[in-house]
Amino acid sequence: MPTSQPWVFVTIFAGAVSVAVAVWLYGWVHRQDAGTKKAQEVASWIREGATSYLRRLYLALTLVAVALGIIIAIVFSFDIEHLGTEAISVDPLRGGGMALAFVVGAVCSAVAGYMGMSVAVAANVRSAAAANEGINQSFRVAFYAGSVMGLAMVGLAAIGMGTVYLLTGDPEIVLGFSFGASTLALLAKAGGGIYTKTADIAADLVGKVELGIPEDDPRNPAVIADLVGDNVGDVAGMGADIFDSYVASTVAVMLLGASLFQNDAVLQAKYTVFPLVLCALGIVASLIGIRFVRVGKNGKPGQALNRGTIITCAILAVLTTAVVLLGDYKLGVLWATLAGLATGIVVGFTSDYFTSSENRPVIETARVSGSGAAINIITGFSYGLISTVPSIIGIALATLISYYLAEWSGLSGIYGVGISAVGMLSVSGMIVSSDAYGPIVDNARGIAEMAGMSQKVIDTADVLDAAGNTAKAITKGFAISAAALTVLTLFAAYAEVVGTRGVELSISLRDPMVIVGVLLGAVTPPLFSALTMLSVTDNAFKMIGEIRRQFREYPGILAGTEKPDYAACVDLAAQGALMSLVLPGFLAIFLPILVGFVLGPEALGGFLGGSIFTGIIFALLMSNAGGLWDNAKKFIESGEHGGTGSDAHKASVVGDTVGDPFKDTAGPSLNTLITVMSLVSSLFAPIIAAFHLF
Amino acid sequence: MPTSQPWVFVTIFAGAVSVAVAVWLYGWVHRQDAGTKKAQEVASWIREGATSYLRRLYLALTLVAVALGIIIAIVFSFDIEHLGTEAISVDPLRGGGMALAFVVGAVCSAVAGYMGMSVAVAANVRSAAAANEGINQSFRVAFYAGSVMGLAMVGLAAIGMGTVYLLTGDPEIVLGFSFGASTLALLAKAGGGIYTKTADIAADLVGKVELGIPEDDPRNPAVIADLVGDNVGDVAGMGADIFDSYVASTVAVMLLGASLFQNDAVLQAKYTVFPLVLCALGIVASLIGIRFVRVGKNGKPGQALNRGTIITCAILAVLTTAVVLLGDYKLGVLWATLAGLATGIVVGFTSDYFTSSENRPVIETARVSGSGAAINIITGFSYGLISTVPSIIGIALATLISYYLAEWSGLSGIYGVGISAVGMLSVSGMIVSSDAYGPIVDNARGIAEMAGMSQKVIDTADVLDAAGNTAKAITKGFAISAAALTVLTLFAAYAEVVGTRGVELSISLRDPMVIVGVLLGAVTPPLFSALTMLSVTDNAFKMIGEIRRQFREYPGILAGTEKPDYAACVDLAAQGALMSLVLPGFLAIFLPILVGFVLGPEALGGFLGGSIFTGIIFALLMSNAGGLWDNAKKFIESGEHGGTGSDAHKASVVGDTVGDPFKDTAGPSLNTLITVMSLVSSLFAPIIAAFHLF
Repeated sequence: MPTSQPWVFVTIFAGAVSVAVAVWLYGWVHRQDAGTKKAQEVASWIREGATSYLRRLYLALTLVAVALGIIIAIVFSFDIEHLGTEAISVDPLRGGGMALAFVVGAVCSAVAGYMGMSVAVAANVRSAAAANEGINQSFRVAFYAGSVMGLAMVGLAAIGMGTVYLLTGDPEIVLGFSFGASTLALLAKAGGGIYTKTADIAADLVGKVELGIPEDDPRNPAVIADLVGDNVGDVAGMGADIFDSYVASTVAVMLLGASLFQNDAVLQAKYTVFPLVLCALGIVASLIGIRFVRVGKNGKPGQALNRGTIITCAILAVLTTAVVLLGDYKLGVLWATLAGLATGIVVGFTSDYFTSSENRPVIETARVSGSGAAINIITGFSYGLISTVPSIIGIALATLISYYLAEWSGLSGIYGVGISAVGMLSVSGMIVSSDAYGPIVDNARGIAEMAGMSQKVIDTADVLDAAGNTAKAITKGFAISAAALTVLTLFAAYAEVVGTRGVELSISLRDPMVIVGVLLGAVTPPLFSALTMLSVTDNAFKMIGEIRRQFREYPGILAGTEKPDYAACVDLAAQGALMSLVLPGFLAIFLPILVGFVLGPEALGGFLGGSIFTGIIFALLMSNAGGLWDNAKKFIESGEHGGTGSDAHKASVVGDTVGDPFKDTAGPSLNTLITVMSLVSSLFAPIIAAFHLF
Repeated sequence: MPTSQPWVFVTIFAGAVSVAVAVWLYGWVHRQDAGTKKAQEVASWIREGATSYLRRLYLALTLVAVALGIIIAIVFSFDIEHLGTEAISVDPLRGGGMALAFVVGAVCSAVAGYMGMSVAVAANVRSAAAANEGINQSFRVAFYAGSVMGLAMVGLAAIGMGTVYLLTGDPEIVLGFSFGASTLALLAKAGGGIYTKTADIAADLVGKVELGIPEDDPRNPAVIADLVGDNVGDVAGMGADIFDSYVASTVAVMLLGASLFQNDAVLQAKYTVFPLVLCALGIVASLIGIRFVRVGKNGKPGQALNRGTIITCAILAVLTTAVVLLGDYKLGVLWATLAGLATGIVVGFTSDYFTSSENRPVIETARVSGSGAAINIITGFSYGLISTVPSIIGIALATLISYYLAEWSGLSGIYGVGISAVGMLSVSGMIVSSDAYGPIVDNARGIAEMAGMSQKVIDTADVLDAAGNTAKAITKGFAISAAALTVLTLFAAYAEVVGTRGVELSISLRDPMVIVGVLLGAVTPPLFSALTMLSVTDNAFKMIGEIRRQFREYPGILAGTEKPDYAACVDLAAQGALMSLVLPGFLAIFLPILVGFVLGPEALGGFLGGSIFTGIIFALLMSNAGGLWDNAKKFIESGEHGGTGSDAHKASVVGDTVGDPFKDTAGPSLNTLITVMSLVSSLFAPIIAAFHLF
């Protein structure tokens, strides 16, 4: 593939530039003023807590990676393509390569997450300190810290995928890399989600509800765990989640590209490599776009973030148009890229509509809260259900447009759908940067309060925080729609991989095995959500016990004369979160394999389909309803319907607490769940197909 | 079809016997002692309210039936089978016949519902009066009143389907009858669900919460609307819902039977008529089973109801075995019938497990309620999600068993799946009887309280009510699993009907149109649920305004010296409920047609599939979570975790209020929604297929 190889080098180079900029920004953030001694002390507690969690997470990851790596090395050493038809040959190089790719994928995702989280912890306190100088300086620290993760993530992904492909020339090995990244994402996202809400709920129930002390009060033993949670759940978790979709969509399209033009090696290589081209262009667009994100002395941070996103999308559109025209690509890939970008924006703004306090859903939910918590819940939940409709229509339109325009221009339709996912995700550098900004400024506010900083600092932090919440709603919509298109592509890639092994898959809804597969797949996301949410309440009860024990045994804590044992709560949350992952993680990885072996490849196709459909709907429902309840509470706190302390406010607090595990634990993990299940299926598809031919 | 015609007469005869028994029981109930003057007065208010609602409902129904009837008469007068291929011929007889069948279907369902509701209203007060004589007499009145609707329903359905088939010999015309029944069911079930919860929530919020007066206090202007609601939602609504599944599954299997053995008219007729045979046997089994439902002086009413169900199922199994062996039917139909019955029982008991206060889900939800309403909601919702898993596995197993055993015995697999649905539903006479019993005793308790009857009466009514709740959970599980198998059969019937028009439907998940169809179908049930739930809160707010107005303008009401204007609240609830149906009803009937015409028959296949998958999951989730919250509250009220008035109790009341529209409005209407959408699609399939061939 001589004509396309330069592009692989370009991708690796763009990735290296991205990582270099991330490293430079990492240093820049650390060189900023770290504030008062008290603030630094608080920050050090958060750093210790975060490190302690990461140590446990990476230990768990290592165990899982070694175990799965060995399985992969063994399984893929057999020449499964010819299982049953001729003598079985053994190729340990392929098995070893696949296992290595798997481990490298997990490590790359872990490194990006580690950089992102460690810079976030450093940036919390520095952003608070910078608030003394004004909103523009404080914003810059937080946003550039967020960019560290965004750029490290896309950079490492580009380097990793490019290198694996360069060395092996086999997209199926790159699938191993993607599976590694997704396995980490599952642990990081679901674990982080459980961690953060365990700490949040326990801290609130004992602190705010039982004792009436304010949020982020340093006397509360769970307060540090709560602040750590924002970093591990929202920063590291969301980063891993998008890393996972980013890599998975790129790999899936490479696989689909490799099945095009099977008798023209040059064209085949050209379209196999095109998703990497889009990654490279997306990195360039993000690097430029990030430069445009800045606010003046009285600027609006929310506008700055949106401006950055829109400029990045525009640059990507221009660059893609240029490359497609100059490089003589078929126009279908351009339309697909643009459809993907447009859908990302539509779904993002839909989330914004349903969760912003300027629109009917939040206003109405706040209004009815005066009649009690139950009405608040019913109303918010109903709007959450309705919010799935425009997003699903957007995803459906993107699918149809990219499919038929790609087919019309002479490519396979499903390749076009994949390109629309990659197009949407190629601007992840920018998206993750503005997403990670949110929890950083949220934490800056917490530190400012705990360290007794001035009211001006707290007010500035509040303004920055509000912008973060809007950005978060938009990026969540983005992440879910990207995951939806990604898994639809992976689904096609699965069928493609099975097809190349001689099993022509007809995943027809008129086949009872497919129906049964769909039914089983459709209940998996609800089951997964339930398990993670029950883990949150279980772990929160354990932590409540620990908080009460500390207050009881050390009365000095409540009096403010004694330092609580923050580490005990941090450890409890970390241990609980990781233990809770065993069953859901097992489900995600082994259920598809089980369905495939027992019920056959058609049923597995149905299973994936079913999990995708309900997965997307529950993810949208839970994210949007959660955001809506959160903002309805904030709307009331701004003075509407009686303000803080009124009956309406109490009702809205219940809604917000229900929404917490919805939007931060169960909802977003579903993306990763369906990606992991689709990847596992594609990876094991040849074996399952061979087993059923046998 | 000479050899099978006798069975059609047997079916009609069995239906007539069933109706005759229902009429006799109707008279028997009315001949019972109607209690004190005060009790009769209260009962007369309920009767007036119920009648006023029914008048409005039937007016609305008449309008819809006339409009749809005209459309059907016109559309089906064209010889659409040959549209586009030759000159179009016009056959007004077929169009008129179809329209007539549609109207008769709606009328039969309406008559059964009217009988059921009017006897229920009469039985409320008589059951309360009989409680003076002991639990056995009170139970008998309530159960026999419930049987009126059960027997009238299956009887009228059998007569209607048998007669239409006898006259036309064309199962597609019977489809028109089924569509009529379903249209009424949609109005009755969703409308009744909105009505009952509007009144319930409004009465509770003003009465119990604002003023602190007890439930069922005669001073509350909404109390009669609340009692009427139990009858219109739970009695008439649930009856219409099962009537709808009962007819739809039978018709779908008749259609599938007509496509078997196309070159052996005798065998073809035999299997076309077999679902009617099952209906006849089910009526016999129910008539016998009902005789076994009785309690002694100190008997347990719950056991009596379960005994009746199990005996009925056993009799049906014996009768079916005899008919299959003696009638030389293929064994596949026997296995399918048994698989259906077993699944009904499994799903019913799953619902019971998740909603009974003897098991972990309710106990755990009650336990965590001490930490507030939010934790109660998260826990109950999570268990509701988990509860979908065993039910779905049960439905999947029934599908596989009946499919492959039917195929193995030489029939089409999907015919077997249909037979399992009909087998399950053939005992509906018994199921509906014990289901309708629940709201009757619930209301008896309300009347006893309002009419100031003795504590002994209230205690007896409480015991009867508890048994009703368990029976209700089981029959809801039954209704949902029956609907699931029914719509899977209808789905196949749709493809079959399209197939006979020369379009070989491949509803493959690898086709983007199918994917888009599935995505759109999958969001329809969530959207429908949301619209009905928002209607409940909207209407409840209007009624709250009315209640407050009455208390304000007539201070004598609260003092107990003046009678509130009950009729105003009744009218408000009725009007609100029917107005709220316009949009959801429109969605249910026109969305499938729209998808079919715009995106094609494959996309419509996907749309139906998607709506079925999420429809079943949301129906199970909402019914079970709602029942669980209800019983967690009752468990706490029984003295656990601090009992009534404790913090845990307050939290559980929030959960129960959220659960009310879940389990009584949104959840159960989804059955009807997916049935109606599948029926509309099958009915219009020939036209859609012709349009796309054109």
